[in-house]
This record gives sequence, C-alpha cells and structure tokens, in this order.
Amino acid sequence: MKIQNQHYCSIWLNPHNRQQIQVIDQRFLPHQLEIKTLTRWQDCATAIQDMWIRGAPLIGATAAFGMYLAALQLPAQQPEAYLQQVAQNLLATRPTAVNLRWAVERQLNTLTGLAYNNPLIADTLLNSALEIANEDVETCRLIGVHGLQLLQAIYARKATTGPLNILTHCNAGWLACVDWGTATSPIYHAARAGIPVHVWVSETRPRNQGANLTAWELAQNGIAHTVVVDNCCGHLLQHGMVDICIVGTDRTTRTGDVANKTGTYLKALAAHDNNTPFYVALPSSTIDWQISDGLKEIIIEQRHSDEVKYVGGISNSGQYHRVLITPPNSPAANYGFDVTPARLITGLITERGVCPASQEGLLQLFPEMNRIQ
Amino acid sequence: MKIQNQHYCSIWLNPHNRQQIQVIDQRFLPHQLEIKTLTRWQDCATAIQDMWIRGAPLIGATAAFGMYLAALQLPAQQPEAYLQQVAQNLLATRPTAVNLRWAVERQLNTLTGLAYNNPLIADTLLNSALEIANEDVETCRLIGVHGLQLLQAIYARKATTGPLNILTHCNAGWLACVDWGTATSPIYHAARAGIPVHVWVSETRPRNQGANLTAWELAQNGIAHTVVVDNCCGHLLQHGMVDICIVGTDRTTRTGDVANKTGTYLKALAAHDNNTPFYVALPSSTIDWQISDGLKEIIIEQRHSDEVKYVGGISNSGQYHRVLITPPNSPAANYGFDVTPARLITGLITERGVCPASQEGLLQLFPEMNRIQ
Repeated sequence: MKIQNQHYCSIWLNPHNRQQIQVIDQRFLPHQLEIKTLTRWQDCATAIQDMWIRGAPLIGATAAFGMYLAALQLPAQQPEAYLQQVAQNLLATRPTAVNLRWAVERQLNTLTGLAYNNPLIADTLLNSALEIANEDVETCRLIGVHGLQLLQAIYARKATTGPLNILTHCNAGWLACVDWGTATSPIYHAARAGIPVHVWVSETRPRNQGANLTAWELAQNGIAHTVVVDNCCGHLLQHGMVDICIVGTDRTTRTGDVANKTGTYLKALAAHDNNTPFYVALPSSTIDWQISDGLKEIIIEQRHSDEVKYVGGISNSGQYHRVLITPPNSPAANYGFDVTPARLITGLITERGVCPASQEGLLQLFPEMNRIQ
Repeated sequence: MKIQNQHYCSIWLNPHNRQQIQVIDQRFLPHQLEIKTLTRWQDCATAIQDMWIRGAPLIGATAAFGMYLAALQLPAQQPEAYLQQVAQNLLATRPTAVNLRWAVERQLNTLTGLAYNNPLIADTLLNSALEIANEDVETCRLIGVHGLQLLQAIYARKATTGPLNILTHCNAGWLACVDWGTATSPIYHAARAGIPVHVWVSETRPRNQGANLTAWELAQNGIAHTVVVDNCCGHLLQHGMVDICIVGTDRTTRTGDVANKTGTYLKALAAHDNNTPFYVALPSSTIDWQISDGLKEIIIEQRHSDEVKYVGGISNSGQYHRVLITPPNSPAANYGFDVTPARLITGLITERGVCPASQEGLLQLFPEMNRIQ
C-alpha cells in the first residue's frame, strides 16, 4: 500500500544487498517513519520481541527471514543444532501468534533432505522466506476480494444514507502483514470499487495500534476514518453507527474461536448485543487446527506493565515522550490478547472465501484438514 | 478519605474566609496535588466545565456553592433574573449529570418566599450548599454500609482462596463525591471490616480517571489494586478473576438504565456473559424519575476530540506533557458516556438499600416517587 504516494511493503530484501532485510520500524508511527536494516537473526528476534514489527503474518515473515540470516552465519560445527536453536529462540519471542510457529517450521521443513553444511542452505531459506512473504500478499489480496463481496452486499441493503461504516480494532492492516492487510484488505478493495467507506478506528490500548498505525495507514491511502477510544465502541454499536465490524486474529481454533488483541471480545459482545455483523479476517496460516477451545487452550501473553502505565506520543514541541499515567507505585496487569468465542462471530473471511465461525464452516473451506483430529 | 494520612473532602468552605470555596484540582492527579480557591460563580462553572472537579455528586455540590458565590455579588437591579441566569449557565456546563440540575434547582427552591434583595440570600444558599455536601457524605456512607453486606455475602460464598476481586470503572470514588465515594464506599467499608479486597482499576480512556484518580485514591487509603486497560476487562471476567463489578452512574432512569462513563456498557456485557454480578452504586439524586428509556432519552455528551487525540502524564524528567497519539489530521469522536440497559445490571446500591435495576425495584426503596409517571 502507499506511504506518501509511494508503494511499500512492510518487509523486503534490500535490493542492493541480499544479506540485509529491511522493515518499517513501527514503534514511532504515526509521528516518524523509520526504516530498519536487519543483518543478523538476532535483529529479527529483537524486531519481533520489541515490536518494531508486529501482526501475525508479518511476525511469521520476519521469523522466516531470520532463519535465512542465521544460515548466512552457520557454524561449521553442528550447523543443524545451531539452526534448531535459532528456531527455538525465534519461537520464544512471542507466544500467541501461530504464524510464528508455522513460518519457522516451514523453514525447517524446507531443509528436509539437504545436508546442513550445504552452501545452498541460505539460498533455500531465502527463497522460502520470499515465498512466504509473497504468498502472504496474495492471501491478503484474496481476503480482500472475498470481503469485498460481503461489503457490497451489506452496503446494498443499508437502510440509511451515508457511507458504509466499518469498525475495526487494533491494526490488522498492511503494516501487520506484508501488503493489503487482513481486516483492512476488504476496506481497501471496497474503496477501489467505489463504495464510500468510513472506518471507526478503536485506539487499541495499551499500545494504541489503532490510533498510531491503522489511522495512519488509512490516512496515507485516502480512506475516511475517525479514531475513538475503545470504550466508545459500545455506544457506536448501540446507536446504529456501525454497519459491520472486521478485525484480525493472531490465532484461530479449528472451531472458530479467535484470539486477537485485548478488547476484541468486548467489541464482539457489543456487536452481538446490537445485531451487527462481526467478521474476522484471517489467512489460514493463523488457524491452529490442533486446538478446539480457545478459552481453555490458548495461553494469553502477559506483557510488561509499563505498556499500561506509560503512553508514548509527541508533545507540542514535536518531541517524542513516554508519559506516566498512573501513580508511580500502582501495579498494572497487561494481558495482551483475549479470546472471542465463535458464538459471537458472524463469519470468517479467509483467502478461500467466507465461512461460519465453526469447525464445519472451516472444514468446508479447508477439507484437507479433516484428517486432523 | 485520606491523602498522605490526612483527612480531606473534595470540596470545602475555606475556614479562614467564608467567601471562598476550595477544591482539589483533579486535573494533575496523581502526579501533583493542587488546591484551587473559587471566589466567583464563574470559577465554579469553569471548575465543572474544564473538569478541575468531576463526578456527578461533586458537580452538584460545586454548582450549589456556585449559586452561593453568585449571591455574594448580587446586583441591586433584577437580582432574581441574575440568579436565574447564573443557574442556567451552571446547568449548561455539563449536560449528562442529573445531580447538576438537582442541586441548582434545590438552591433556587430554597429561596422560595425570600425577597431576592434580602441580605440573608447568600447565607441561605451557603447553608443549603453545606447541607447538600453533608448529605452527600452521609448518602455515600450509607451506600457503603449497604454495599458492605453485599460484599460480605459474595466473599463468604467465594469458592477460591485469595482476596475479593472487585472491578470498577472510571472514578466513582470519594474524589467524585464529597467523601467516601459511591462505587468505592463499599470497598472502603469492606477493607475496614477486614475483608481482603483487591480492586481491578480500568484506566477509563479517554480521560484516564481510573488510572489517574481511582488508583491514586485507593493507594492513598491502602487498598490493594491493579490498573488494567479498559480492553482487558473482558479477559479478567472470562477467567474468573473478578468476583463483582461495582461502578457509579451519572444518571439513572426510573427503570434502572444507567448512563455512566463511556465503556461501562462493555464491562456490563462481559460481566453478564460470564455470570459475574454487576452492581451500580448511586445516590438517589442521580435518578431521573422523568425518563424511562436510557438509550432513547439520555443525550450523550460529545466532548472535544483532543481528549481522544492527546494523553497527559509526566515524562521521565518529572514534567507534565500532553502527547499526541494519533496522526495530526485524523479526526476523532468523543462520546463521553454510554447507557447500560437495566437488563445487564444485577442491582443498584443506594443510600436506602440494594434493589433490582427496575422500576419496581426502585419504587420499593423510593415509594414516594410512585406519583411521578
């Protein structure tokens, strides 16, 4: 998508130096656009752990490139053990995102049958990482194509005049993926198809990915939007100011439960209470076919309490500050995600089409997964 | 309640100068404790409008003292018209709080039969304002007494070990009243009765009254607490980490619908979805007996978008900063309250006892209101 009218992806191979991966450092958006160069697998781990980059698909792609960078510095002794250890370290950077495991395992599998001292190991991992990134672009594009049909139908039967009002949470935008985004892809596609869209952007405390990232990427791509605090979403839904909710997911169970940014569950409850459709957009790589009870089986990442106690932004002088908003000694808890039960979800928008949030719905689109019990 | 081990009220007559009202300026808490002196009715209007003070009962008391300060400067010509105009101006400072209207009308009624050029007008209004303030202290104390019984019962049947976990939203604490608070009064009473309490404090964007005020007043009074972002409350409720929710209200319909700080509705939905009791603590002055459908009849105050776009706090250097957290040109909407339908509320804790959130429940406690249709 566009930044200052130029096309960007969120991660790319440096065209001038194939030993470097480049990413947009998202920590200082929307105030400052910074490009970071990653040259070691540890840089990728840091980028994931310290959230220079975030979003399940982009985390997966970054970890995949991390495996490639590790292979560039493969030790002569026990190269396989080394790569296995790198894989473990990359997996430990964020517990919730299922794409992380998926991407790292795909990288390990791609080496099956190759000797680990083979000089082609790095090339193999690079090609596979590029494939993962490109596939993500195509997956997100398809999510947009299927989501567009949904938005066209809802817009056609909208009773009141005015734009199609879409509520989204967090950033399931192109910044969370490689391009297009998941939840935003139907929005970008609808705008291109001529539907007047307006997006309610919930700020998404504690890290404000809505206010910081989604608002910024929508603005850069000319999409009308309004930022609201997370608390306000119930009021909007109660008063018919939302036609559809679309959010992303970090992990989806085979039964359609969705682990996503904390606060998603509250918005789904309010959508349900007001008969407003609530959709989750997801690449199938975020489906964890092994688990069926999101509430019991998904471990929710607890992040540092400082994310709650401090807020970052720029002051009038244009300087970036982190400011403390609680009494200095008050403790804070920071559960980063929550689980939205499938019963609150109208449907899932995947790269293969839209389906009910249920095992039956998902297996209709992904029948090859029937064998996994 | 206590600040640095000294007893304070949130508003008081300056004991050294009876023409001055003093309040705690709550805008810079928890970082800085500032006492402001109000000498003109316009100061009271500013204190309400610019939220030096907030909370339905305290707004009412401040407006009542404002009427007194106006009477100190009563013009010789048309004093009645002047006071009526002051009353209108005070009423216009905040649209949602029903106590504001109640207190201002009570002040006007207290003058019934007095000539407006009577030198006792000011004294009459002062005594009535002090009465309003003292009554609020007693009302809040009684809310605590009744709420304590509820908390004792819930603690007695708590299946797991550990403290009684109470979730509250915004600041319905003593800072919002004159003393004790509404939602916090049962908590302070429970702590004094020896129940180990732990309070989940939702930060309450956009103005962070939870993180700024509730956390601070609980800390000053030795109550264990943890700050969470509003988004996190669903997760806490899903995982049995909350035994009871208690919130305040700015306005309650005769049928038990509750208008309170934005985000209350979402927490009530989550409590309901997880079979957790959700109580609203209120002085009966916040009941608007004229209206019966909160969603249709309560006009929700829209506040300035800068409250959403900026967050205030102190930086590492100890300086207070307001920082911008959205793209500078992204619009923001700021509906300050929402309405929680009575069906989601387990009960109302009033100064006369606890009742179901319904017209029947309220009329059992306030049978004298039966005549109002």
